[in-house]
Amino acid sequence: MNIALIGAGNVGWHLAQALQSAGHTVTAVYSRTATPREELSRLLPQAQPISSLNLQSINAEVVLLAVPDAALATVAAALQVKPGTIVAHTSGSQPLSILAAVACARTGVFYPLQTFSKSKAVTFKKVPILLEATDNETLQELQALAQSISETAEPVASGARRQLHLAAVFACNFTNHLLGISRQLLLEAGLPHHLLQPLIQETVAKAMLHHPYLVQTGPAVRHDQNVLDEHLHMLQQHPQLQELYRLLTQSIQAAAEKQ
Amino acid sequence: MNIALIGAGNVGWHLAQALQSAGHTVTAVYSRTATPREELSRLLPQAQPISSLNLQSINAEVVLLAVPDAALATVAAALQVKPGTIVAHTSGSQPLSILAAVACARTGVFYPLQTFSKSKAVTFKKVPILLEATDNETLQELQALAQSISETAEPVASGARRQLHLAAVFACNFTNHLLGISRQLLLEAGLPHHLLQPLIQETVAKAMLHHPYLVQTGPAVRHDQNVLDEHLHMLQQHPQLQELYRLLTQSIQAAAEKQ
Repeated sequence: MNIALIGAGNVGWHLAQALQSAGHTVTAVYSRTATPREELSRLLPQAQPISSLNLQSINAEVVLLAVPDAALATVAAALQVKPGTIVAHTSGSQPLSILAAVACARTGVFYPLQTFSKSKAVTFKKVPILLEATDNETLQELQALAQSISETAEPVASGARRQLHLAAVFACNFTNHLLGISRQLLLEAGLPHHLLQPLIQETVAKAMLHHPYLVQTGPAVRHDQNVLDEHLHMLQQHPQLQELYRLLTQSIQAAAEKQ
Repeated sequence: MNIALIGAGNVGWHLAQALQSAGHTVTAVYSRTATPREELSRLLPQAQPISSLNLQSINAEVVLLAVPDAALATVAAALQVKPGTIVAHTSGSQPLSILAAVACARTGVFYPLQTFSKSKAVTFKKVPILLEATDNETLQELQALAQSISETAEPVASGARRQLHLAAVFACNFTNHLLGISRQLLLEAGLPHHLLQPLIQETVAKAMLHHPYLVQTGPAVRHDQNVLDEHLHMLQQHPQLQELYRLLTQSIQAAAEKQ
């Protein structure tokens, strides 16, 4: 398929390359600023870097919007495409209806559920792509496109996708932050971070096998008050981490009581 | 070596079996209650389940204390061993000095840095064991014991071990709780939890390669206020999760500002 990509951030960066690897052609890359669209276009031999949202002269059956959630409504309102083009956004949190403003288009959602950084390659085959569309034909075309780059392509309606995105914030963004805090604490003690790697891997492996609430370990769930007090004392130079420690401990204890 | 194990909880359960697999003999298993010591002893052909902390008639060069942190001081005070026995505790948070009360013993720490649940097997070779001892000879004997079951056995003093344990609470116990919250949110939306597995695995894989603060993604670090407000609204039935969401968001933004 011929695809135009709006947005050259982390999602667009990986998505465009996965599409190209699967044999599709990315014909145009739009971004507001010049550097990202030119950098990404250089990786896509047939892509033209563009600075206008009027795509009526661009050869593309599908236009994918990989822009920040906050910019989506504005971009959708400004976008002009050939009649019959499929326009799909890639956001986990935004509804399909945000694309209602796009004239003459069939609209959909093409949400790759993954965390993307330009600095790290991603195995796209393993990235679930969650789909939605205004009509069944568009859904089927998006599904075919998704299945060409991923093993998992499933229709998920706006409400469920929004909840999935919230769950993903806890499982990914917040988890990453906790891993960052632990790394910071190790650095402060002059300890190598590789010491914690087997623990982190085991934590995640166990969470795949069992509901994490049922395999919770540590001083909070044991109500080991001496250790909890000592940890809070050790964090006294970091009042925000202290507050986070306190709240996570309470939340662990509350979840355990409900089991 | 002949080893007596005090405590038949999650740590003792896995440690005893790893020691036996490496060719050591667990000669006795103590626990306060009958069921765990008998269940564990059944897995260890030469182990005698015992209910007294007087081990003077037990054949053991090393006594390992795998009891809850809160019980450690009491158990240490009640323990009686043959002169010259090595007594080591397995706690991340407790100092070596807590064993000063054990008469006639050489004391140490033998801390396996991992999360243990009886329901899941652990590859002990990959579990770092952190060691400490009152004298060099004892340290060397504990190191030989640790190296017989693990690839990583390193001396770490009480202060650094305590900080490592605090970091492990963030990286493991708190992370597990966040994974539990995300699972709960998926269940509430009727979504299968396998959808999030590639995301969780990628999050952890990326955190091994880069400092997590430098690869933070998501609405918090983007200051995407619309999404943040919507997520807080979606959590209104869960005030504790709402508070956690707010605090983690602030903490992510504060960490990003310091970079």
